[in-house]
Amino acid sequence: MCYFAGHVKKADIIQQIRSKKSYLCTGLDTEIGKLPHHLSKNGSGMLTFNREIIDSTAPYSVAYKINTAFYEQYGVEGWEIMNETLKALPQETFKIADAKRGDIGNTSTMYARAFFDAMSFDAITVSPYMGEDSLRPFLEFKDKFVICLALTSNDGHKDFQLSQVEEDKKLYERVIEQVSKWGNPDNLMFVVGATRAEAVKHIRSLIPETFLLVPGVGAQGGSLSDITHASANSELGLLVNSSRGIIYADSTEQYAETAGLKAKELALEMSAFVDQYLV
Amino acid sequence: MCYFAGHVKKADIIQQIRSKKSYLCTGLDTEIGKLPHHLSKNGSGMLTFNREIIDSTAPYSVAYKINTAFYEQYGVEGWEIMNETLKALPQETFKIADAKRGDIGNTSTMYARAFFDAMSFDAITVSPYMGEDSLRPFLEFKDKFVICLALTSNDGHKDFQLSQVEEDKKLYERVIEQVSKWGNPDNLMFVVGATRAEAVKHIRSLIPETFLLVPGVGAQGGSLSDITHASANSELGLLVNSSRGIIYADSTEQYAETAGLKAKELALEMSAFVDQYLV
Repeated sequence: MCYFAGHVKKADIIQQIRSKKSYLCTGLDTEIGKLPHHLSKNGSGMLTFNREIIDSTAPYSVAYKINTAFYEQYGVEGWEIMNETLKALPQETFKIADAKRGDIGNTSTMYARAFFDAMSFDAITVSPYMGEDSLRPFLEFKDKFVICLALTSNDGHKDFQLSQVEEDKKLYERVIEQVSKWGNPDNLMFVVGATRAEAVKHIRSLIPETFLLVPGVGAQGGSLSDITHASANSELGLLVNSSRGIIYADSTEQYAETAGLKAKELALEMSAFVDQYLV
Repeated sequence: MCYFAGHVKKADIIQQIRSKKSYLCTGLDTEIGKLPHHLSKNGSGMLTFNREIIDSTAPYSVAYKINTAFYEQYGVEGWEIMNETLKALPQETFKIADAKRGDIGNTSTMYARAFFDAMSFDAITVSPYMGEDSLRPFLEFKDKFVICLALTSNDGHKDFQLSQVEEDKKLYERVIEQVSKWGNPDNLMFVVGATRAEAVKHIRSLIPETFLLVPGVGAQGGSLSDITHASANSELGLLVNSSRGIIYADSTEQYAETAGLKAKELALEMSAFVDQYLV
C-alpha cells in the first residue's frame, strides 16, 4: 500500500503504527569508524551498511531519522550518501531529516527547499530560538512536518530550556505553547527527550493531539514503558527513536540481522502498548 | 602576508581590520534565480558569480560569510559550489559558515568536523537552545571561532529571545552570560542584529572584549554609524555583515565592479570609525 509518495498526513502515520504495531523510529546515525570490520571504511561501505540495516529493520520501523551531521561531516560525499540512503527507505515510512535548522525567514525557506524539495524528506527538526518567522517557511510546505526542539535529552537542556520565563512557565513550555499556535497537529511535532517521563506527561497535557518524537530510549537511558505510559494518546501519538542500540548492536557480518532482531524486540514491546492505547 | 592558514586568532582579525581599515563582512547569499542575466542559471554560473564578487570585494572585506542554506538548497551540487567558493576566498580573510548548528555533544562534534576539518571554515554560527554540551565541541577546536546567536535581526527575535528569565534579565542576556563562561573572546563571538543600537550598546557593556557579528545593516535597515558608535571598542570589536546590498547591487555585466564599489563605500565609511576607535 502506498501511504504518501512525498505527501504525508498524520492519519498516514497512525495507519502505519496500526499495521506494523510499532511506533519505532530507527535512527541512521552512521559513522564510517563504527562500520563492521568486513565493510569498506568509506562512503560505499556506509551506504551498504545503511541499505542492509534498512532492509532488516523496515518491517518494524514506521519512521527513519537521518541525523544530517553524521553525513555532513564527510562533505559532499556525505550528502550523496544521505541522498542515496533516503532513496533506499521504504516508501511508506516517515522520513525525518534531523537537521535542527532555523534561520531568518528567507533563509529558512532555502532550508525547507533543501530538505523537502531537493531531497524528499517528510519532516525536518528545527530549533525555535529565532522565533516565528524562522519556523513559518517550514510549516508552509503542504503535507510535511516540522519537528520542533522542545525539551531535549542532553545535559545542556538545563541551561536555557528550563529557564523560568513566567512564574509557572519554563522556556520549553513557552516554546510548545507558542509554536503550537503557528502550526497544528497535522504539520507539527515536538522533540522531547525520553529521560524525563514526568516532563513528558506534563507536555502531553499541554498538547493532547500533537505527536512527540522521543529520542533517548536505550543508549541514553530512557525507558520505553515509562515514556509510553506517560504520553501515549488514543492515536498513540509517539515516535520513539533508537539509533545506536539498533544499528551498532553487532559488529560482525551478521550486523544487519542483529539490528533487525533489536528492532523487532522493541516493536514487540511496543505492540502491547499499541493494543492498549491506539483506538 | 599570511595571517592564519587554517588557524585564526583574534589578533589576526584585528590586524586585518587595521590594514584594510574596514570591518566589513561580505555575505555570499548567492541564489541562482538572482544571478545577472548573462550568467548561466546553474551551479557553474553561481560559482563564476561568487569568484568575481570575491575578487572585487576582497580589498575591502576582512571576512566572508557563507550562509549554508543558500547552497544546501541545491543539494549535493550546492555543497560542491560552497566548497569551491571557500577555496576562492583570500587566505587572510576570516571565513564564516553561517550554519546555525547545534545538537547533542557527539553530534555537534560531527558538525564541527564538517565545517572546520572537511571544509576549512574559521568560524561557524551556532544556536544556543540545547545548551552547554551542544556548544562545547565547537569551542574545543583550536584557533577556530564559535559565533553564537544572541539577539537576531528578524521579527521572531521577540518570541523567545526577549523572554524575561529573571526580573532584570532576558533570555538573550542569559545566553550571552552563560556562553561567555564556556568560551572566551579568543574563540567566541555573538550574533547581534543591527536593527537595535540600544540593545547592542547594552550587550557591549556585558561583554567588553568579545567580537560581535552584526547582520542587518543595509537591506534589513540598520545604520552602520549607529551600530558602530554603540558598540565599537578599542579593538574595534565588530564585524558588520552586508549581503544583498553588495552582491545584488547591479544585475548587469558590471555586477562585480558595482559590488566592489558598494563594498568600497562601506569600507570608506568604516575607515573613519577604525581611526576613531581602534587603538
